[in-house]
Amino acid sequence: MRPTQAWLADGPRTPLRRAEIHRRELRPDDIAVRIDYCGVCHSDLHAIHSHPGSGPALVPGHEFTGTVTEVGPAATGFAVGDLVAVGNIVDSCGVCPMCRAGQENFCADFPTLTYAGTDRHDGSTTLGGYAREYVVRDRFAYPISGGLDPAAVAPLLCAGVTVWEPIRALGVGPDTRVAVAGLGGLGHLAVKFAVALGADVTVLSRSADKTPDAQTLGARTVVSTDPDQMAAVRDTFDVVIDTISAPHDLTPYLRTVALDGTLSHLGHLGTVSVDMTDLLIGRKKLSSAGSGGRPATAEMLAFCAEHGITADVEVLASAQIDEALERLDRNDVRYRFVLDMSDLDG
Amino acid sequence: MRPTQAWLADGPRTPLRRAEIHRRELRPDDIAVRIDYCGVCHSDLHAIHSHPGSGPALVPGHEFTGTVTEVGPAATGFAVGDLVAVGNIVDSCGVCPMCRAGQENFCADFPTLTYAGTDRHDGSTTLGGYAREYVVRDRFAYPISGGLDPAAVAPLLCAGVTVWEPIRALGVGPDTRVAVAGLGGLGHLAVKFAVALGADVTVLSRSADKTPDAQTLGARTVVSTDPDQMAAVRDTFDVVIDTISAPHDLTPYLRTVALDGTLSHLGHLGTVSVDMTDLLIGRKKLSSAGSGGRPATAEMLAFCAEHGITADVEVLASAQIDEALERLDRNDVRYRFVLDMSDLDG
Repeated sequence: MRPTQAWLADGPRTPLRRAEIHRRELRPDDIAVRIDYCGVCHSDLHAIHSHPGSGPALVPGHEFTGTVTEVGPAATGFAVGDLVAVGNIVDSCGVCPMCRAGQENFCADFPTLTYAGTDRHDGSTTLGGYAREYVVRDRFAYPISGGLDPAAVAPLLCAGVTVWEPIRALGVGPDTRVAVAGLGGLGHLAVKFAVALGADVTVLSRSADKTPDAQTLGARTVVSTDPDQMAAVRDTFDVVIDTISAPHDLTPYLRTVALDGTLSHLGHLGTVSVDMTDLLIGRKKLSSAGSGGRPATAEMLAFCAEHGITADVEVLASAQIDEALERLDRNDVRYRFVLDMSDLDG
Repeated sequence: MRPTQAWLADGPRTPLRRAEIHRRELRPDDIAVRIDYCGVCHSDLHAIHSHPGSGPALVPGHEFTGTVTEVGPAATGFAVGDLVAVGNIVDSCGVCPMCRAGQENFCADFPTLTYAGTDRHDGSTTLGGYAREYVVRDRFAYPISGGLDPAAVAPLLCAGVTVWEPIRALGVGPDTRVAVAGLGGLGHLAVKFAVALGADVTVLSRSADKTPDAQTLGARTVVSTDPDQMAAVRDTFDVVIDTISAPHDLTPYLRTVALDGTLSHLGHLGTVSVDMTDLLIGRKKLSSAGSGGRPATAEMLAFCAEHGITADVEVLASAQIDEALERLDRNDVRYRFVLDMSDLDG
């Protein structure tokens, strides 16, 4: 086993604790990655708050970038020193129809999650990227190209691909009117992608505060709490990417969807109530998405390299993880915290 | 005013009462129609059961066919003696974006319904097609061609176009795997349309009883209460047309939807609960539809004329309306009751 330093939770409260954990010895198709940067995702906060206080410790982190330090004998596509990125899925069955369709995120046998998942070979609980090293199957690491900043690439692997998949599946392009509800970690990337794809982009935000930021990103703003502004955009958006993480009434957002358009509700899982009349009038669709398959992840990274797109990040030393989590909990971040893991060497 | 005979409800209970009602004198763009056949829709039953027992009397009926008896001076496209069909919408604002898109059923100013609607010119409550005559704006009557049986055409105007619109909007064609949940008034027409469009069609039914009927219509059957049969069709249908009128859990049906596919939930309005995970895994969409715009209605009738498609109906004399409603209430109909209105002359 390979010892490495990590930040772990034993229960539902911060602060996280620095401790030594162990990674597996490399399997033939594994690579070892020195983690340089790891994004801090809302899911991490949720996982920590949900920790029962017993059972396996939790090491969060499922969007990270780093440097290849070792390559298994059957691993292909990577050499020591390569810059790579890893997202929230590190394995899948590979044979079900969803895997064969390149949607490992929907694997019928459930994909192996980067943390708090179950390794499909040894049954161990996976430990995430708030650590200095990760050992990953080659297929689930992606090369970083285009000279992009590795710190700002990290959030693309979860927040990025989560919005990229519906944006692509819904055919966003130059003729598309897109609204993005919520301008946070997911939302600001949705705006960047849609703008780069040539769409006409509007941010739906609860206050006008986000107007200058949206404008910088190439989008206009509609204040969602202003009935007149919302009435003016009724039935107008082909695609609404709803990234609001708190539970909320979908009705005002569905009303902005155009005939035969789709609202993709990404920010909140769980059960939602839908008035079918809101879908009937205008033949509107409610959808969701989350994470991404290997082809979509690779396609997104290539698109980002071509267009120079990365996340807007605030980089903190990994020892500041508690500050990051606390500020994330009150949405005080523009737009994603990324931990610099090099302090774990000290 | 033009007197005519009709069947009306004064309260939430049957039997309906035969009485004389009055139609308006023809406006310039109106035609008068002698109603020959009127379908009996689930909505009629619902409207009767919801009647408060006071206020305007209710004359149900919003899918009928008949013969033009008089043509207003500015009405175009019709001559006395023409066979015509009328559905559940008899007017709309004509200027909103939905009307301009040919989706008068989604008129922002609300379409004028064929019964229990409010006439947009004189404010009167509209009275439906359980009657011998109707006066309708020319734009909302459709010629019947192709030698189709007018009795069996009547249900196309509500049940038919309600399934036609989503089938067309979702691109059903030779490469599409379609499931139809519920084989009733809407469902049997959805099967006929999808089969005629070249799709591969499956009926999802709670029992195997419907298997021979589905086979006759060109579809195989999956018994939705059999977990093994449902597991075998998991993630396989590009389009699921859900016509089940009773409230029901959508989860088993959403699980049969393929990657990026859509479940169009038609049979039941009101609020439904959706587990977003059922949409997330497979990036599935939930939609709805209801009624149809003028272009879709005309397109459907042309398609039916070309393919010889009509509803499977049981024709009863209009005086048997109470029997029809009572049997419809317990789903004892294959697949639509149609009232022959000629007995109202006696």
